[in-house]
Amino acid sequence: MSQNLPRTDPRPKVRLYVEQPLGQGQHIAVSQEQVHYLGNVMRMKPGEAVALFNGRDGEWRGVLTALAKRGGEAECDGQTAPQLNPPDLWLLFAPIKKARTDFIVEKAVEMGAARILPVQTEFTNSERIRRDRLQAHAVEAAEQSGGTHVPGVADLAPLARVLADWPEDRVLWWADEGLAGSDPIADPAPAPAAILIGPEGGFSPTERARLAALPFVRRLSLGPRILRADTAAVAALTLWQARHGDWG
Amino acid sequence: MSQNLPRTDPRPKVRLYVEQPLGQGQHIAVSQEQVHYLGNVMRMKPGEAVALFNGRDGEWRGVLTALAKRGGEAECDGQTAPQLNPPDLWLLFAPIKKARTDFIVEKAVEMGAARILPVQTEFTNSERIRRDRLQAHAVEAAEQSGGTHVPGVADLAPLARVLADWPEDRVLWWADEGLAGSDPIADPAPAPAAILIGPEGGFSPTERARLAALPFVRRLSLGPRILRADTAAVAALTLWQARHGDWG
Repeated sequence: MSQNLPRTDPRPKVRLYVEQPLGQGQHIAVSQEQVHYLGNVMRMKPGEAVALFNGRDGEWRGVLTALAKRGGEAECDGQTAPQLNPPDLWLLFAPIKKARTDFIVEKAVEMGAARILPVQTEFTNSERIRRDRLQAHAVEAAEQSGGTHVPGVADLAPLARVLADWPEDRVLWWADEGLAGSDPIADPAPAPAAILIGPEGGFSPTERARLAALPFVRRLSLGPRILRADTAAVAALTLWQARHGDWG
Repeated sequence: MSQNLPRTDPRPKVRLYVEQPLGQGQHIAVSQEQVHYLGNVMRMKPGEAVALFNGRDGEWRGVLTALAKRGGEAECDGQTAPQLNPPDLWLLFAPIKKARTDFIVEKAVEMGAARILPVQTEFTNSERIRRDRLQAHAVEAAEQSGGTHVPGVADLAPLARVLADWPEDRVLWWADEGLAGSDPIADPAPAPAAILIGPEGGFSPTERARLAALPFVRRLSLGPRILRADTAAVAALTLWQARHGDWG
């Protein structure tokens, strides 16, 4: 078969996030955990191909050249997708129960949030998060969603401080349960933008008054029913992406 | 305090789905499981109020009159919300792993789907569902979302048969992964309408050809990343609700 025919083998199913720069002929280290997954879970062997991305250089086909217990190696053999960075949209949310927090991070990655900021509100259920665990979860979601960008997960910060330090050119789109069913859906502002999802139990009266008074805050209605935080995050991100984002 | 002042106590936090008709002064049976929840979990006592709905008569304030082990009773004391039926929008999805299937049902209820139809596709992971369990899950989601409607969950049916019996005036909006990132988002059709979400692994080539040829099918793009089925369901329902549904 001619080398000039278009490649007919499908894009590799296994996608790995790596730290190193990617480029033709580059040799890329594969971590111990990744080797375990490739060898023991996926039963892959040297010579087979994975997809590699690092959040900067797009997606590359990586042919496995070594799979040893202590780590392996893959060689870059052609770019399979360009780097696609999501629009400049942040997602702010109040961490909830562990499983739901994981879902929100996963969904923010799938939906193309550029950055994820856990905020502590008066009614936030949890007072600490494990940022490194959530970041690893974002990496895993990027591997599975076919994306080439991994949103950074910020440290948990009090909402009041985040608002005090807010960049004024970035509209903050507040998913306000108090609006449910009464007002029309607000028209989302273009990037730079951010979405704020409240905790179970909503925002406190103090927080609501503060948010309502801030010049960069716009209110958003997500319909007449009460949405869980992870549902609200997907719904708000959908409205924004369909209007201003990379879905068009 | 005058009886003519507006009620200042908040709407009851506990919402119960019941089967009986609701109306002023009606005595409503509270099931054994509901009594257990009210008494042992929520520590409620006779004289306290819950919210009652049955999917037909709106939401009513129900004052608990009896809480016995074998069952209890509440008396209707004023309607607190009118019946709100969602628009005539169905959600069709291919059941996946149990936890994700539960999530899809939960999210369909929150998002205001009128009916939920599990369909079996060529790549559907599970061959059977427990319809009664999913229906109970829909009831629970309605109790928590503040809604007064409970979507019916249909029995699992093969996609081919569902399509063969399709009512032609109902547009079926097909979330097609093959469109990702290439075409614009399709403009959703008004009710009656339906959304079809595929299984992990997407639809088979045969199914894709069949869907593409049907006159009532429209394709929908949900952006350049691959969404999990539950994320795709929320995103598609959002686009429809914001355009034609009860969010406006």
